[in-house]
Amino acid sequence: SPDQQNRLTMGLFVWFDNSFVLDDKEFAEALGRDEIDGESRIATARLEFNGSYTEDYWYYFRVDFQDNGSGSGDSAVEWAALGFNNLPVVQNLLVGLQMPTYGLDVWANYPRHRLMLEPSLVNAFFHGPLLGITAFDVDMEHKLSWALGIARDTTEEAGTGLQAVDKGEDDYIVHGRFSFLPSYSELGRHMIHLGVSGALIKPQDETLVWGIWPEVYTDDVELYPLAIIDNAKKAMLGVLEFRYVEGPFWMQSDYFYNKTQRDTADDLTFSAFYVEAGYFLTGHQTLFNPLALNGQVLPVPVTNRKLGKWGAWEIQARYSQLDLRSKEFQGGATALGDGAEVTNYTLGLNWFLNQHIKIGINYVHSVREDLDDAKFDVIQTRLAWTL
Amino acid sequence: SPDQQNRLTMGLFVWFDNSFVLDDKEFAEALGRDEIDGESRIATARLEFNGSYTEDYWYYFRVDFQDNGSGSGDSAVEWAALGFNNLPVVQNLLVGLQMPTYGLDVWANYPRHRLMLEPSLVNAFFHGPLLGITAFDVDMEHKLSWALGIARDTTEEAGTGLQAVDKGEDDYIVHGRFSFLPSYSELGRHMIHLGVSGALIKPQDETLVWGIWPEVYTDDVELYPLAIIDNAKKAMLGVLEFRYVEGPFWMQSDYFYNKTQRDTADDLTFSAFYVEAGYFLTGHQTLFNPLALNGQVLPVPVTNRKLGKWGAWEIQARYSQLDLRSKEFQGGATALGDGAEVTNYTLGLNWFLNQHIKIGINYVHSVREDLDDAKFDVIQTRLAWTL
Amino acid sequence: SPDQQNRLTMGLFVWFDNSFVLDDKEFAEALGRDEIDGESRIATARLEFNGSYTEDYWYYFRVDFQDNGSGSGDSAVEWAALGFNNLPVVQNLLVGLQMPTYGLDVWANYPRHRLMLEPSLVNAFFHGPLLGITAFDVDMEHKLSWALGIARDTTEEAGTGLQAVDKGEDDYIVHGRFSFLPSYSELGRHMIHLGVSGALIKPQDETLVWGIWPEVYTDDVELYPLAIIDNAKKAMLGVLEFRYVEGPFWMQSDYFYNKTQRDTADDLTFSAFYVEAGYFLTGHQTLFNPLALNGQVLPVPVTNRKLGKWGAWEIQARYSQLDLRSKEFQGGATALGDGAEVTNYTLGLNWFLNQHIKIGINYVHSVREDLDDAKFDVIQTRLAWTL
Repeated sequence: SPDQQNRLTMGLFVWFDNSFVLDDKEFAEALGRDEIDGESRIATARLEFNGSYTEDYWYYFRVDFQDNGSGSGDSAVEWAALGFNNLPVVQNLLVGLQMPTYGLDVWANYPRHRLMLEPSLVNAFFHGPLLGITAFDVDMEHKLSWALGIARDTTEEAGTGLQAVDKGEDDYIVHGRFSFLPSYSELGRHMIHLGVSGALIKPQDETLVWGIWPEVYTDDVELYPLAIIDNAKKAMLGVLEFRYVEGPFWMQSDYFYNKTQRDTADDLTFSAFYVEAGYFLTGHQTLFNPLALNGQVLPVPVTNRKLGKWGAWEIQARYSQLDLRSKEFQGGATALGDGAEVTNYTLGLNWFLNQHIKIGINYVHSVREDLDDAKFDVIQTRLAWTL
Repeated sequence: SPDQQNRLTMGLFVWFDNSFVLDDKEFAEALGRDEIDGESRIATARLEFNGSYTEDYWYYFRVDFQDNGSGSGDSAVEWAALGFNNLPVVQNLLVGLQMPTYGLDVWANYPRHRLMLEPSLVNAFFHGPLLGITAFDVDMEHKLSWALGIARDTTEEAGTGLQAVDKGEDDYIVHGRFSFLPSYSELGRHMIHLGVSGALIKPQDETLVWGIWPEVYTDDVELYPLAIIDNAKKAMLGVLEFRYVEGPFWMQSDYFYNKTQRDTADDLTFSAFYVEAGYFLTGHQTLFNPLALNGQVLPVPVTNRKLGKWGAWEIQARYSQLDLRSKEFQGGATALGDGAEVTNYTLGLNWFLNQHIKIGINYVHSVREDLDDAKFDVIQTRLAWTL
Repeated sequence: SPDQQNRLTMGLFVWFDNSFVLDDKEFAEALGRDEIDGESRIATARLEFNGSYTEDYWYYFRVDFQDNGSGSGDSAVEWAALGFNNLPVVQNLLVGLQMPTYGLDVWANYPRHRLMLEPSLVNAFFHGPLLGITAFDVDMEHKLSWALGIARDTTEEAGTGLQAVDKGEDDYIVHGRFSFLPSYSELGRHMIHLGVSGALIKPQDETLVWGIWPEVYTDDVELYPLAIIDNAKKAMLGVLEFRYVEGPFWMQSDYFYNKTQRDTADDLTFSAFYVEAGYFLTGHQTLFNPLALNGQVLPVPVTNRKLGKWGAWEIQARYSQLDLRSKEFQGGATALGDGAEVTNYTLGLNWFLNQHIKIGINYVHSVREDLDDAKFDVIQTRLAWTL
């Protein structure tokens, strides 16, 4: 740009995934299929533009040419937001297509560098990206941050691929977070984050759908079914957030509580939870933003020391749980559409060859409690590189 | 590029729109619906490449990742044209996917910076983008310009979104313009443009469709229905063009006359018209190309003075009319498919925060004369930014 | 990039095509149609990113916003591969979405600069792009090269556009090449390539489809039908490759043998063949990679001398043959789905105006031996330009 105050970064990100099914006998039987196969895919092939006009404005744009979220492999605009800084009352605004601000999971797993290969099962309660406006600020002196947003979810389908469900017209969403950072230093190399966040979701067509994006992927996406609520009045989501970082070690956790009110029936309550942790064997570190937002400052994978001949090595683990069966419907899964109860155990290993290339491998053991504890084992790999 | 003669500009353009329906009672009733809602959308998210090889060749390429013209939100290549300058006889050629050359509306409203938020109702008679070749030249001494093109419209659908109509095989289009510029100086800061332009459109499958792209947008696109002519032989479009610019004030107008010939029935005649004007309260100006083409020189929003602390402010107004009911079918709208008669009144305010960000707000009052003067009021906003 | 070792090239490539049908009487009659029309199209509008991280890693990414291979005109990721050099045992690896390594045709016709306007009829036996991993190396001292790959074809459709056929789940493909270069110098300005290559294709759903991408294009893609084999066990492809380059003259040829094994019936055997040659009247030359791979070193059209005032001119010819009728089914084309027997004769002229712009014109005479030698004549043109 001729304007010297402007800063622009363009990035291309490609993820090449392969999954290998180790044990599909119980799951395949429970789902009425012969077998469940592994899959190869370009999971993402996205272009990002990221920049600022003076100190007062910044933007983030992202288009994925291989959008597996939609199941079609078509291109999709995933972020298109303009940020305003240094405003009189609200301090910072983010306007346009963006992610809402509840839970650490989606923010930690949606940016350039995902902490783990796939989002956890709490993703079942996540709606996004959304069209809206979010105000936020951080007060490092008092170690507080807040965010408050209002948005429309204008997509007319929920779920992914084979499971896509027509959810009708726009949903309206109010979302927000309040966090306390008793400790934060060195760009997040040492930090404790305690947060409460949540959302109020009002469907215009009385349909709400919970449960997308399985933590493992196969040749199909039916592993964890959806809960489709046709007479929904509104849903309230409450989240407790925790993150702890100390040098090469990090851990984080979200607990999601979901109360979905219905027009002519009792309320439904669901929940989801995960705790995950990672440790760099080579002493490297991941940086975190104090805001738990990553539109501006992205969690760069490894930064505090040079990558030597053997790169950086990180081991990871996660315990992840989703309960899509309500007490109101104990034993009556059909009334919930296809709601499920799932627990996943994940072990992971990441090798950062250099600043641009990462090879990740995850072993995932999945248990469907609602299907007589049927078990399923997958190894999934990712070769990720950036321009 | 290693070749120093080359010049390349890449641009990213994002428009974030929100519309709010003020009064939908009469329209909703007339259309047999409960209500008509406002909408949020990324109206466009497009990447442009624009450059030249030496003085003799230039190109313009544009892909929209969020193509609302197609109603699908998919990506679409909208321009892909190569220009040749300094040729022996025709002087300039433009070859490839491009806009045809009739009317000021589409050219003023299709480039990087639209004069107003949406094209006017004359857009109902516009076909494009097209695959073809256009010759053009401007003689500034004699204040004349001309353009003549031949093209194929290879799209197989007309209309947008819910109203998309299969119009069958290719249409062939000959289009051209002749303009006289009694006054033109300072890159269009002072100008008078008087033009006649037109097109001859020959459908291969006997189907012609008129009427797309409503001037206001809602959660639906059925506000102004289409005229679908199934036994069309050819259509002749004639346009009278006028533009006047004097410093911060500009105004322009197109009058479209459409004569659609049918095989076994009388000719149909339609018309459309608009007059629109803008005035910069802050003394800024919009630049205009003498050719009324904007492949090369684009109307930059505000250029003659620095944008101060408060940016540039512009007020706008438009009166826009579309008559899709033919004298041959007075009172027989069904024979025309769903042709309509519409008048729109628009008031607009634009705030250019800086060279990259514009906030626009339009109030549109729409009247359907064919539906007992049913009325509809909308406020629509746009946050537009470029890389 | 801040990292000075990185190298990145971005390119935009646009092809604007027009075809004109000279003689369609016999083909139209044989296909039961009134006529077959020419077509205009943006054949490709693609963005490429091509670069390296140090000497050890390189990547190639390509997205086509106007993917005519899919018939939809939608965007498609066509390449997304990461290369590793200087590895211990295999020397070079290419990982991700890529082309397999059998036949010279696809490699010579798939890169930035195609030798001829369209691939030859041997393309009927080509599967790609594929998700996989390929090892390869070249030993210039002993004039040998080899490549060996394993991949999954995860597309669920075969054929193009109107003829798209559901081929079910993944195919697995092993592919490879062994080549001997008795002569190679000056970046391929003088070379002889003798190669054998092949593939073993195993469908998971027992469906294999042969025959896509006609050498000429019209308003339709049904000119050369598909052979759809529903009870396929596996297919073995064997290819003999030959290339000879001497200054401004080049020629190459592929002979494809295809043996498709079926579960409950005899094997089917098909074949395809082409020989093509070009000669630069202006003394210019095309460069060729010794590996017959073009991920890294691409065949640049004209390089050994400056393009003068009149650019570079090249004449071309091709004889191309496809036999999709098996001896097992002599006279029983229906048993093969719609398999055909085709011979194409092509004469071509290319004008490289400068480094960025090429105008190509092909005359193609096509004969359907399976339809009483029905004949079809087309002239097709391409205006190709790059950023």
